[in-house]
Amino acid sequence: MRTVSWDAEREALCLIDQRLLPADFKLAYYREYQQVAQAITTMVVRGAPAIGAAAAFGLALAARQSDSRTPEGLLADLKAAATTLGAARPTAVNLHWALRRVLQVAEAFVGTADKLRQVVLAEAQRIADEDVEINRRMAQHGATLIEDGDTVIHHCNTGALATVDWGTALGVIRMAHEQGKRIHVLVDETRPRLQGARLTAWELEQYGIPYDIISDNAAGYFLRTGQAHKVFFGADRVAANGDVANKIGTYMLSLAANDNGVPAYAVVPTSTIDLSLASGEQIPIEERDATEVLNIQRDGKPLCPAGASARNPAFDVTPHRLITAIVTENGIVHPPFDAGLRAVVDDRP
Amino acid sequence: MRTVSWDAEREALCLIDQRLLPADFKLAYYREYQQVAQAITTMVVRGAPAIGAAAAFGLALAARQSDSRTPEGLLADLKAAATTLGAARPTAVNLHWALRRVLQVAEAFVGTADKLRQVVLAEAQRIADEDVEINRRMAQHGATLIEDGDTVIHHCNTGALATVDWGTALGVIRMAHEQGKRIHVLVDETRPRLQGARLTAWELEQYGIPYDIISDNAAGYFLRTGQAHKVFFGADRVAANGDVANKIGTYMLSLAANDNGVPAYAVVPTSTIDLSLASGEQIPIEERDATEVLNIQRDGKPLCPAGASARNPAFDVTPHRLITAIVTENGIVHPPFDAGLRAVVDDRP
Repeated sequence: MRTVSWDAEREALCLIDQRLLPADFKLAYYREYQQVAQAITTMVVRGAPAIGAAAAFGLALAARQSDSRTPEGLLADLKAAATTLGAARPTAVNLHWALRRVLQVAEAFVGTADKLRQVVLAEAQRIADEDVEINRRMAQHGATLIEDGDTVIHHCNTGALATVDWGTALGVIRMAHEQGKRIHVLVDETRPRLQGARLTAWELEQYGIPYDIISDNAAGYFLRTGQAHKVFFGADRVAANGDVANKIGTYMLSLAANDNGVPAYAVVPTSTIDLSLASGEQIPIEERDATEVLNIQRDGKPLCPAGASARNPAFDVTPHRLITAIVTENGIVHPPFDAGLRAVVDDRP
Repeated sequence: MRTVSWDAEREALCLIDQRLLPADFKLAYYREYQQVAQAITTMVVRGAPAIGAAAAFGLALAARQSDSRTPEGLLADLKAAATTLGAARPTAVNLHWALRRVLQVAEAFVGTADKLRQVVLAEAQRIADEDVEINRRMAQHGATLIEDGDTVIHHCNTGALATVDWGTALGVIRMAHEQGKRIHVLVDETRPRLQGARLTAWELEQYGIPYDIISDNAAGYFLRTGQAHKVFFGADRVAANGDVANKIGTYMLSLAANDNGVPAYAVVPTSTIDLSLASGEQIPIEERDATEVLNIQRDGKPLCPAGASARNPAFDVTPHRLITAIVTENGIVHPPFDAGLRAVVDDRP
C-alpha cells in the first residue's frame, strides 16, 4: 500500500486521505490535475517527497485531459498544468523538482501526442518507484547514526505517509528497528496539524516501535534532562549552505538539541536540496489558514474563544549551524555543508 | 470579580473553574480543604499566585472543619491540612509559601480556638489582597520594559486568572496597554492544556488588546524574522541563581529569544523566589496525566490513535543565562541574579 500510486484500472491517481487519519483510513481517487493541485493545497497528501510524486502523476492526468493531437500542443497544456500544480504549495522544492523532471522528459520527446501521454505517465511512475528506493538507501545510511537503546525525538511525519513509501527520517528509525536496535521514539505532536500525534504515532503502531507522544513544548525538557539522545526530522527544502526549511518548530527543536550537545539530523532525498538558493533566508515560507490553529476541541467544545485570530506559518528555517548532519540517499553530509551537498546532488543519476 | 475569593455568605472559597473556559464561565464553591486540594490538583485553579491564595483559604476552611476547642488542637489540624494542600502540586513554590505564612501566624497566635479560626481566615484574605497589590506593582515596574509598537510573545496564562487578580506577565502587558502603548501579543497556545489559547486569549479579548494565537512551535519563526520584540512569561519557582521553572515550553521559547537577541523577561512576585534552592536543577518537575496530551479532538474525533501513550512533564527549567531580567514587585532584577534576588526578597514586609 503506497501513499501515492497510480490506479491503472481507474486511470486515476490514488492517495491516502491523510486529513482523516488516524480516525478513518480512506482512499481518494483523482482523474483531473486541478483536483490533485487542490489535494496538495488542502493536505490530503503532504510530505515533500509525496507531494512531488503526486504532482508528477498530476501531469500524467493533465496529459490525458488534454485534447491536443500534436506533441507541441500537449506540451503547452502540460506546462500550463505544471504552473497550477507548482503553485499548490510554496515551500517544498520537491514539487518543482518533480514537475521539472517530467517536463524535461516531455520536452526531449520525439513522437506522437499519444505516445507522449504514455511517456509522461511512465516518468511519474519512475519518480514514485525511485522515491521508495531512495528512501531505503537514506534509511540505510541514517540507521548507522542510531545506537541500540537510543531515545530519539522525531518532528512532524516523515514516514511512509510523507513519501511514496518507507519514509525519510522515520524511515531511518524504522530501518534501525528492523536491524534489531532497541529504540524509543518521543513523537513531537507537531502543532498545528498534529502530523506527529496523528500520523507518526499511527505509523509507529504499525511498525511495533515503542513511542510516547509529547507536546512540542516538552522536547526541551527531555533534551535537557538527558532523556533524548538524537533528534531526527525531514525537510521541505535545503539551501546550498545547509539551512533547512522544515515543519514549523524544527528551529526551536534544533536549538534545544544544540544547547544540550544532542545531534540533530535532517534526512532528505537529494531532490529536496535546492542549490539555486544560497541560504535559507530565500526559501518562501507558506502561511496557512488560521483555522488550523483554532479548530481544536475537547469534549466537543472549541478550545479557543469565539472570534479569536491566529497566525499560522507552516515552516521555519533552521540555520545550518544547528544541523549536525544531513542524511541523503547518496551518503551523509557533514559540515561545512556546501561542498558535500553539491557532491550528493552531482551523484544523482 | 476575583479568580480566588472568599464568599462570606456561603462561608466558602469561590473559584472560577478554569477548566471550562472559554466555552463556559462557571463559579465553583468549596467548604472543605480536601476539595480545595483536589481543585488545585485538577487545575480548577492554576497559576502559581492563584494556587497560593487558594491554599491559604484552604487552611481557613480546615480551621472551620476542625472540631478542636483548643488552639493547640486546631494548630495540629491545620498542619495536617497544610500537608494535604502542599502535596496538591509539586512545582510552584507559592503554594508552600502561602501555607507556611498562614501556619506561622497561627503558631504565633495566643488566644482561643475560635479566635484563631478568624485569624487564619484574615491571614488568607490578606494574602489574597496583597497579591492584587503586588501584581499592580510588578506591572508598573514591568511596563517600563515595553515600548509603544512592541509585539510581544506571551507563554501560558499569567493574567488575572493565574493570580487573585490583575496578573504577572500579562499584568505587565495590560498595564502598558492602559498607559496607552500600542502592543500586539502573540499568544503561545501553550500545549498541552492550552492556557494561552483558552485563557490568555479570553483575557485579552476582555482588555481589548490585539493578539494572535500561535502554535508554540511558531514562536521561533516570529523571533527569527524580527516580528517579535520581547518575550514575557511568569514562573512557578525561581531558584537563588535565577533559574526559572515555568510552564513547559518556556525553555525552548527562551532559547529562541536568546538566539535572536530578543529579551526574555520573567515576571514573578517575590513569593515565587525560593532562595533555599541553589539552582533550578533542584526544582521538582510535575509529570501530569497523559490524557492531557491525548484528549484533543477535531470535528468531534480524537486526533491521536486509540491506545497511544504520552509523556507529559508540566514544567521545565530555563537556565538563568537565557533570562534577561526578572521583574518583581520590589523592582527589576538584572544578572547576575543572586544578589538582586536576595535583595528583593529581603525587601518583603
